[in-house]
Amino acid sequence: MSSEIPKEQWAQVIEKTGGPVEYKKIPVQKPGPDEVLVNIKYSGVCHTDLHALNGDWPLPTKLPLVGGHEGAGVVVARGDLVQDVEIGDHAGVKWLNGSCLACDFCMQADEPLCPKPQLSGYTVDGSFQQYAIAKAAHVARIPKDVPLDAIAPVLCAGITVYKGLKESGAKPGQTVAIVGAGGGLGSLALQYAKAMGLRTIAIDTGDEKKKMCTEQLGAESFVDFGKSSNVVKDVQAATKDGLGPHAVLLVAVNEKPFQQAAEYVRPRGSVVCIGLPAGAYLKAPVFESVIKMITIKGSYVGNRKDTAEALDFYQRGLIKAPFKVVGLSELQSVYDKMIRGEIAGRYVLDTSR
Amino acid sequence: MSSEIPKEQWAQVIEKTGGPVEYKKIPVQKPGPDEVLVNIKYSGVCHTDLHALNGDWPLPTKLPLVGGHEGAGVVVARGDLVQDVEIGDHAGVKWLNGSCLACDFCMQADEPLCPKPQLSGYTVDGSFQQYAIAKAAHVARIPKDVPLDAIAPVLCAGITVYKGLKESGAKPGQTVAIVGAGGGLGSLALQYAKAMGLRTIAIDTGDEKKKMCTEQLGAESFVDFGKSSNVVKDVQAATKDGLGPHAVLLVAVNEKPFQQAAEYVRPRGSVVCIGLPAGAYLKAPVFESVIKMITIKGSYVGNRKDTAEALDFYQRGLIKAPFKVVGLSELQSVYDKMIRGEIAGRYVLDTSR
Amino acid sequence: MSSEIPKEQWAQVIEKTGGPVEYKKIPVQKPGPDEVLVNIKYSGVCHTDLHALNGDWPLPTKLPLVGGHEGAGVVVARGDLVQDVEIGDHAGVKWLNGSCLACDFCMQADEPLCPKPQLSGYTVDGSFQQYAIAKAAHVARIPKDVPLDAIAPVLCAGITVYKGLKESGAKPGQTVAIVGAGGGLGSLALQYAKAMGLRTIAIDTGDEKKKMCTEQLGAESFVDFGKSSNVVKDVQAATKDGLGPHAVLLVAVNEKPFQQAAEYVRPRGSVVCIGLPAGAYLKAPVFESVIKMITIKGSYVGNRKDTAEALDFYQRGLIKAPFKVVGLSELQSVYDKMIRGEIAGRYVLDTSR
Amino acid sequence: MSSEIPKEQWAQVIEKTGGPVEYKKIPVQKPGPDEVLVNIKYSGVCHTDLHALNGDWPLPTKLPLVGGHEGAGVVVARGDLVQDVEIGDHAGVKWLNGSCLACDFCMQADEPLCPKPQLSGYTVDGSFQQYAIAKAAHVARIPKDVPLDAIAPVLCAGITVYKGLKESGAKPGQTVAIVGAGGGLGSLALQYAKAMGLRTIAIDTGDEKKKMCTEQLGAESFVDFGKSSNVVKDVQAATKDGLGPHAVLLVAVNEKPFQQAAEYVRPRGSVVCIGLPAGAYLKAPVFESVIKMITIKGSYVGNRKDTAEALDFYQRGLIKAPFKVVGLSELQSVYDKMIRGEIAGRYVLDTSR
Repeated sequence: MSSEIPKEQWAQVIEKTGGPVEYKKIPVQKPGPDEVLVNIKYSGVCHTDLHALNGDWPLPTKLPLVGGHEGAGVVVARGDLVQDVEIGDHAGVKWLNGSCLACDFCMQADEPLCPKPQLSGYTVDGSFQQYAIAKAAHVARIPKDVPLDAIAPVLCAGITVYKGLKESGAKPGQTVAIVGAGGGLGSLALQYAKAMGLRTIAIDTGDEKKKMCTEQLGAESFVDFGKSSNVVKDVQAATKDGLGPHAVLLVAVNEKPFQQAAEYVRPRGSVVCIGLPAGAYLKAPVFESVIKMITIKGSYVGNRKDTAEALDFYQRGLIKAPFKVVGLSELQSVYDKMIRGEIAGRYVLDTSR
Repeated sequence: MSSEIPKEQWAQVIEKTGGPVEYKKIPVQKPGPDEVLVNIKYSGVCHTDLHALNGDWPLPTKLPLVGGHEGAGVVVARGDLVQDVEIGDHAGVKWLNGSCLACDFCMQADEPLCPKPQLSGYTVDGSFQQYAIAKAAHVARIPKDVPLDAIAPVLCAGITVYKGLKESGAKPGQTVAIVGAGGGLGSLALQYAKAMGLRTIAIDTGDEKKKMCTEQLGAESFVDFGKSSNVVKDVQAATKDGLGPHAVLLVAVNEKPFQQAAEYVRPRGSVVCIGLPAGAYLKAPVFESVIKMITIKGSYVGNRKDTAEALDFYQRGLIKAPFKVVGLSELQSVYDKMIRGEIAGRYVLDTSR
Repeated sequence: MSSEIPKEQWAQVIEKTGGPVEYKKIPVQKPGPDEVLVNIKYSGVCHTDLHALNGDWPLPTKLPLVGGHEGAGVVVARGDLVQDVEIGDHAGVKWLNGSCLACDFCMQADEPLCPKPQLSGYTVDGSFQQYAIAKAAHVARIPKDVPLDAIAPVLCAGITVYKGLKESGAKPGQTVAIVGAGGGLGSLALQYAKAMGLRTIAIDTGDEKKKMCTEQLGAESFVDFGKSSNVVKDVQAATKDGLGPHAVLLVAVNEKPFQQAAEYVRPRGSVVCIGLPAGAYLKAPVFESVIKMITIKGSYVGNRKDTAEALDFYQRGLIKAPFKVVGLSELQSVYDKMIRGEIAGRYVLDTSR
Repeated sequence: MSSEIPKEQWAQVIEKTGGPVEYKKIPVQKPGPDEVLVNIKYSGVCHTDLHALNGDWPLPTKLPLVGGHEGAGVVVARGDLVQDVEIGDHAGVKWLNGSCLACDFCMQADEPLCPKPQLSGYTVDGSFQQYAIAKAAHVARIPKDVPLDAIAPVLCAGITVYKGLKESGAKPGQTVAIVGAGGGLGSLALQYAKAMGLRTIAIDTGDEKKKMCTEQLGAESFVDFGKSSNVVKDVQAATKDGLGPHAVLLVAVNEKPFQQAAEYVRPRGSVVCIGLPAGAYLKAPVFESVIKMITIKGSYVGNRKDTAEALDFYQRGLIKAPFKVVGLSELQSVYDKMIRGEIAGRYVLDTSR
C-alpha cells in the first residue's frame, strides 16, 4: 500500500436511517486480498441514494452507512490476489460492488442477479468518501482519457439504459420508443440507441424536451403525451409502416406508461421496464398479448461486460451527459433539491471539498 | 380435379351467430390456383369453435360459416400453381388457413401474425365438412403412417403448446412449470416438454390429475394448487436449488395463475401465456420484475415450421393424446357437453357420418 | 393489364453459352397468377452475369437467356392472386426471382436456400430487358423517393454484404474487419457496418483505397496487405485490446485471405465468407480453431426481410454506391471492360437506349 | 485446516519431459485465500495427460509436474475468502483449474478462453496425487449421491461433448451426426444428445460398435465408414428428408472426417470440431459453403455452467460411462497401454493405492 494514503478521510455518513448525512472524518479502510482501494475523485448522486438515506425500500441498509454508487477515481492500493488492476489505474465504483462470482447467475454473466451481492452505498460503504473499497473483479475499468467527473453519472444511469437497450432485442435499423426520453435516463438512452444503429421515438412532454430530444439527442420523432389525444395511435404513426416500434424502453417514473406500451408496441415487440415507480404494476390484457406475441420484461443494472461496453461508447465520444459539480460537503443540499424536484441533469460531487 | 369428387357434401353450417349448427348438404368448392381441396376424414372440436358459434369474440365471423380448424384428410384436388403437394397426400387444415406470405411478419416466419390471415372456421369455411379448402403453402403435411383421427387434435392443441415451449427459451435439462397440466393442452405440454429434454413441474389440482401427470405424462413433480397453502413456495421447492422453474407455461383458463407465475419463476426466467381466459390481465409488480429480470410473453399458434416439428414428435411415438370419435352429425351434442363442462380429453368428428 | 404495355421490347439475349449477347427485340411476357411484370428502368451489371454468359459455373443456365439480376423499375401488370403489390409500385428484380415458399428452408425465412429457386438471369430471364417477370412475393419493394438508377446495384451487392454483417453476429460497438474493403462489395460493407453501429478495420492495398476507406467510408483503421510485413499482427493491433476483430467479412476474390482470417479473428469470433473466388478452399488449423472457439461460415444472398432492411438503410441516406450509367445496348462493352479488369464501381444499364 | 490432513502424500510426478512418471511421496500444499484443497479419491486418465508427459504440444508444461485433470474427491481445506464451498463437499478438479474471472472472456462466461488460465496437470499440479489444489470458483460441485469413481471421466470427456452439442445449435427433435461415435467421447455424446431431445446418426466402423451405438447408446442409425461406398450419401439418407443432419460433432482423431462433414451437413447446418488430431486442418470449398450457408466451428472445454449442467444430466441417471479402476501407482502401465492403443473405455485411478 502506498505511503501516501492517509489514515483519515472526509466522508458523508448516514448515522441513522432518515438522516441527515453528516460530513465528517472517518478512517480509511484497507482492501482485502481480492479488493482494491479507490481514491474517489468524483461521485454522481442518484435517486437511489435518497432511498438509502430514507430507508423506504424493503431491503435494510448497513448502518452507519456511506452512500454513493457512481464513484470515479484512481486505484491506490490492492490486495494480494489482485493481478489485473494496477495501482494508478482509473476505476469506477458501481452499484454492484461485488458478487460471489460462483453462483448459478454469476456463472452465466448475470452477476447483478447474484443472491449475495454487495451493493455500494447500501449494504457496503460507497463512493461518498475519498477512499472507497470494491472487489477488484467488479470495478469499472475507466480509460485514462475519460474525464472522471463526466463519467461518474454514466457508471449507473448510462450502463443501465445501455443494458435495457440490449435486453430489448432491437436490432440496428429497428425503432425503439423511449418513454421518459427527456429525463436523465431517457436522454442517455436516446444517445446510446443512436450509437447502436437504432432509430428512436422520444415520448415525453413539453416543447423544450421536444427540441432537446430531436435536435440534440438524435430522436427521429417526438410524441408529446401531454398534448396527444391518442398516444397509442401517434406512437404507431411515427413508424414507417404504422405497426409500432419494435421495442419500448420504460424509464418513466409513473405507472400509466407501463400499461400503455403493450398497446402500441409492434407484434413480436418487447417492452422493457427499467424505471421503478413505487408500487407500480405491469399490466397487459392476456388476449392481445398472446395474439400479438409481445414480450414484457424487466432489466436491472448491467453486468461487468455491459459496463465495459457502455464506457467504450462514451470514450468514443458518442454520449454526452450534462452534469453540475459541487463539493462532497454539499451533499445534503443536493438531496434537498432532489426532494423538491428541482434537479435537471445530474449532480456530481467533488470529493476534495 | 378427380372425377370422384362429389358436387355436394355433408357439413355443419352456422347460419346465424348463436347457432344452432345445422347438419346439411352444401356444394363442394373448387380450389383456387394456390389452394388444395382436402377430403376431411376427421376433425377435432376446440373451444374456439364454440366462440365462433357464439360470436363472443371481438372479431366477427364469416356468415354462413362452416366451423372447425383441426381437420385431417386427403388431398383430392389442387390449383395450377401448387407443386409441392400431391393428390393423395395426407394434409391438415389448421386455424391459419392462409396468410399473405409477403408481409413483414410472413417474411420472418411469423405468419400467424400476418395482418391479413384466413382463419379456418372463422373467416373462411373450416373442417366441419367433408371437403375443405386451404392454401397449399399452409396445410400441415401429415405422414401417411400417422392415423388421421388421432392427429386431428394435435393440429391445434399440440402445435400450440409446442410453440409455447419453444418460445419459453427453456433448454434441455431446465425445468418448466405447466399451469393447468391436467387439462387437454397441459397434458400435451407435459409430453412435448419431456420429448424436448425438459423437466416439468405439473401444477393442477386433484389426486387423479396428480397420478396422470406424474405416472403417465412424465411430470417430475406435482403441485396441487387446491391443497397447497403456499403455491409459490411449493413450486420453488420442486426445483433442485429452490430458485424456481426456468419457465412457466400458462395454459389455465382462469386469471389468478397469470399473476402468481411471476412470483415463483426463477430470476431471468420466462412466463409464457397461451391460454386465453376471457377478460384476463397479466399483472406483475414492476420492482420485482426488474430486480429479477423476468420475461412475460404471449405465444399464439405455431407457424408452418412449428407444425412440421410438432407432427414429427407425434410421428415418432412420443406424444399420446386421448380422444373420442363421434359422427360429424353429432357436433351440436359435443357443443352441449362443452358448455356443460363435461368434456375430458378431445372429441374428434368422423365426417363420414 | 394496362393497354400501354407493348408487345415487343428491347433485350440483350444470350443465344448460346459463351455469347456474345445480342441486342434485339423480343416479345413481352405475361405474368402468371402470382407474378408481376416490371418495366425495368435500370439494371446493374454484376460479375455473376459474366459467369452466366460464359457458362463456367457447375449449374447450367436456361438458353436462350436474358441475363441480369439487379433490375429496378415500375410494376405494370400483376396476376390475379397478387394483392400486396400495386400497379405503379416501384420494384426490384433480384437474383432470387422466386422460390417455393413452402419447403423447410422457405418456411424458416431462408428462401435463398430453397432447393427449387428461380434465379434471375440464370434459370429464368432477368433484368437485361425492358419488361421482366418476377414472383410478386419476391420482388424488392422500392420506396418511391429512391432513385431507380442508384438503387439497382444495391439490389445485389448491398443486400449481400448487409446479410453477411448480420450473419457475423457482431453487435453494435464491436469491430468487423472487411477484407477487400476498397472494392465494390467492400465499400458497401463499410457503410452498412457503420450504419449498424459497428466499428471497422478496412483491409486492402494502396493509398487511394486507404484514403477512400478511412475518409469517405467510415473505416476506423486500414491495414495495407501489400505493405504490411505481418497482416495478422497489424489487424489485431488495430483493435483496442489487441485481441483482434470480433468478426471478419471476406469479400475478396482470392484465396489467401480466407485462410489468414482465422488467425487474426478474436477468440469466439466469426469469419464470414461472401466472395466466391473460383476453386477456393476455406482452411484452418483444427487445434487453434478449437482452442479459440472460432466460427467460420458462409453467407449467401439476403432473404426478403434482409432486402427490405438493406433498402431501408439506403433510403435513410446512410449508403452511397458510386455507379456509371450506359445504355442497355452497350452491355457487351461493359462485359469487355469487366474481362479486362477495367471496372471501378458499378455499371448500371439504362434500358431505354 | 483440518488436523487430519497429512504433511505428505503419494503422487505420480513427472520430473522431466518424456518421463517416466515416478510414484513417490511429496508434500501436501496449502490452499491460497481463494482456493480449496481437495482430497482426490479417483482420477480419470486422458490422452492429454500423455501429451503433458511427452511434451509434444506447443505449450510447455510446469516441471516437475503432477499430471491429471479428472479428479474427484472431498474438500478438506479452504482459503479465507471461500464461502460457497464447505469442508466435506464433494468436488471435481478439472482441466481449467482456475482463470482470472475478470477478463473480457471470463466476464462473458467464456472462462475457458481466459488468456491466463491455470491448467490442471499442465501448468499447475493436477489430480494424480492425493491432495490437489484448485480455485474454489472453478471446482466442479459434485452431488453426494454421485459415485466419485464413475464421475471422474465425466469431468473432462462428458463436459466437453455436452458443450459441443450446445455449441452446435441443434434443437430438440433435430438430428446430429456423431463422427467417432463408438469411442470414449462419442459414446458419451450419443447419450447426452439423446437426453437433450436430439436424434443421432452414429458414424464409426465395425459391427460391434454398430450394435453398441444403436442398441445401448440411443443412436437412431449407424453409418459404417469402413463399409459404405459413399459416406456422404449414406449420412444424408439417414435423415427423413434426405437433406442431411442439422449438425455434425467431430470427435474423431483423424483428419478426413473433418473435411467430409461439410459435404453432408444440411444447408444452414453446423460442423463442430472437438477432437484434436495432430496437425489436422479444417478444409471446405468456399463455393459450396457459401451457397449452403454452413457453419464450421471449434468447441473447447465447457465453462462452469456447462459443468454443472453436464453433471446434472449424469446425476439424473441419463448417462453411463464404462470405466476400469486401477491404483494410482499403476499409472505408467496405463500410459503404456494407451501408447499401444489397447484402451477401450476409460481408466480411473484409485489414489489410495
